Amino acid sequence: MLASIAHSVPPRTYGPWEQVASTLTEGLVARGHDVTLFATADSVTSARLHAEAPAGYEEDDGVDAKVSEALHIAAAFERADEFDVISNQFDFLPLVFSRLVRTPVVTTVHGFSSERVVPVYRAYDDVAHYVSISDSDRHPSLSYDATIHHGIELDRFSAGAGDGGYLLFLGRIHPDKGTATAIDVAGRAGIPLVIAGVVHDEGYFAREVRPRIDGTSVTYVGPVAPPERDRLLGGALGLLHLIDFDEPFGLSVVEAMATGTPVIAYARGSMRELVDEGVTGWLVRDPDGAVAAVRRLTGVDREQCRRQARTRFSAQRMVADYETLFGRLVAARA
Amino acid sequence: MLASIAHSVPPRTYGPWEQVASTLTEGLVARGHDVTLFATADSVTSARLHAEAPAGYEEDDGVDAKVSEALHIAAAFERADEFDVISNQFDFLPLVFSRLVRTPVVTTVHGFSSERVVPVYRAYDDVAHYVSISDSDRHPSLSYDATIHHGIELDRFSAGAGDGGYLLFLGRIHPDKGTATAIDVAGRAGIPLVIAGVVHDEGYFAREVRPRIDGTSVTYVGPVAPPERDRLLGGALGLLHLIDFDEPFGLSVVEAMATGTPVIAYARGSMRELVDEGVTGWLVRDPDGAVAAVRRLTGVDREQCRRQARTRFSAQRMVADYETLFGRLVAARA
Repeated sequence: MLASIAHSVPPRTYGPWEQVASTLTEGLVARGHDVTLFATADSVTSARLHAEAPAGYEEDDGVDAKVSEALHIAAAFERADEFDVISNQFDFLPLVFSRLVRTPVVTTVHGFSSERVVPVYRAYDDVAHYVSISDSDRHPSLSYDATIHHGIELDRFSAGAGDGGYLLFLGRIHPDKGTATAIDVAGRAGIPLVIAGVVHDEGYFAREVRPRIDGTSVTYVGPVAPPERDRLLGGALGLLHLIDFDEPFGLSVVEAMATGTPVIAYARGSMRELVDEGVTGWLVRDPDGAVAAVRRLTGVDREQCRRQARTRFSAQRMVADYETLFGRLVAARA
Repeated sequence: MLASIAHSVPPRTYGPWEQVASTLTEGLVARGHDVTLFATADSVTSARLHAEAPAGYEEDDGVDAKVSEALHIAAAFERADEFDVISNQFDFLPLVFSRLVRTPVVTTVHGFSSERVVPVYRAYDDVAHYVSISDSDRHPSLSYDATIHHGIELDRFSAGAGDGGYLLFLGRIHPDKGTATAIDVAGRAGIPLVIAGVVHDEGYFAREVRPRIDGTSVTYVGPVAPPERDRLLGGALGLLHLIDFDEPFGLSVVEAMATGTPVIAYARGSMRELVDEGVTGWLVRDPDGAVAAVRRLTGVDREQCRRQARTRFSAQRMVADYETLFGRLVAARA
């Protein structure tokens, strides 16, 4: 299991790629597989841990990210013969090592940072095994072995009563993520908004978000670690996920569902695949639609929302999907 | 031959790594070796050219540098079995592929961008064959196979009379390179200064350099292509190379010598190895020393300076040094 090393596995606060690598690793170990996790030394796992980097390069100023990544990836490929499959949860860089080893490499495409990275995926399309994390995120020029939606460890998310009297924004503070839109919508609906997440765009935060934080109608609580996240999600009337781009997946969306909290999302990207309208939330086209949807939130059956999350987005389901794919590749080699 | 792909090989204007890769490639081909040059598609070579990138990533906004580098390096290693030796003129990234192939990889260390990249060199010290480009640039924690000073294609540099009536600054406009110091020294010596090179630090240029350009005592001619460079060097009374860090090598220094133009350099980094005092220039400790050295420039025997450059820094000498090293490694494998 080749994880991203921007953060530890699992991440302390933010780090969706590292979270998925952790969930998949722990699930495979629980099913009896012998897994070596390539991750930072401060990672926590029941698998064998191989660490080149002491800590995530986002969390360690003394480290050159490019050096750290190169040593990390090479370490996994230098040991390739020991493994039946390499699960690449990193990014595109491991692809370019894949022709130099015999072990099949399954690359989970966590999203394309830009169209300019597609050429490397295309160059290895013949030997690569690509997994898309939603059907909507598939690139038309690539061939995929499977779409596997992320799953989450449901026992880490408790049933929330949604009685905190607030709407929640949970994610990076960035124009793409629609933080300001969430403030608008909550304001028009007359319900307080709680904002949680790391600031990824300081200018945007200073310009569009910070001036509107008043501690009552708009509150900012910073990045949140898992226990706090669970509590915040469970207490929310709904999650405002009004994201201005085609998101490949949305972990916070299924996490909200897992606490029983419905989601209001723009009908684009993976959201059409993740949200079951009327059960786990509503898909809307614009802020007006979002304001209208807020009024329907109280009518949601939170237990049914939670059941749906359990059925569709459990770690068990995700791990089983990967296990099937890995098994198929191992059988094909034999 | 694995070249850097920031620029084409040879570079149109700036690109010392690409220039060295070109000189070495052409020299090896001239000596009858079968060389494949991995470089940008707009490179010009008598070797076989393998190109993944259409153009240098510094010259092509449509390209992601990381993608371009990854595809480029992998292409060379995927063909490793075809080669007796891989000469890595790129940087540290190819090192991490080197355990995955049987072909020896000779890495010319063109300098350490920071102490933070040393760990990757150290991690591959056991399998790597490092070439330092000056003794002064050797890192104490690494083992080297050789120091090979760069050589230049001397027939591209004509004997200049040094009669242009100016001192020359040739290099990137950057605080490290001492552009402002050169202006001070030339001003104090009462001799016009011509500045040539790309602006690498816009703020420094705007603050320290541009206000002092007057078109007579200080002239800026921008980056210069080889023919113009030859003319500028040959016409200069001397090259002011007052560089504020330990430079691994200084191509412009030996290029100046090759036109008969002596060099005034700070006595640090590789300069002690490159400059023969009284023959090809003077080593000084500070601006005062530089001003004093300017007065001695007219006494230099330009023909002797040129002969010294020919003896010590010819492409032939460099190519022969690499040929010896490559031959030793091939023999050791057999």
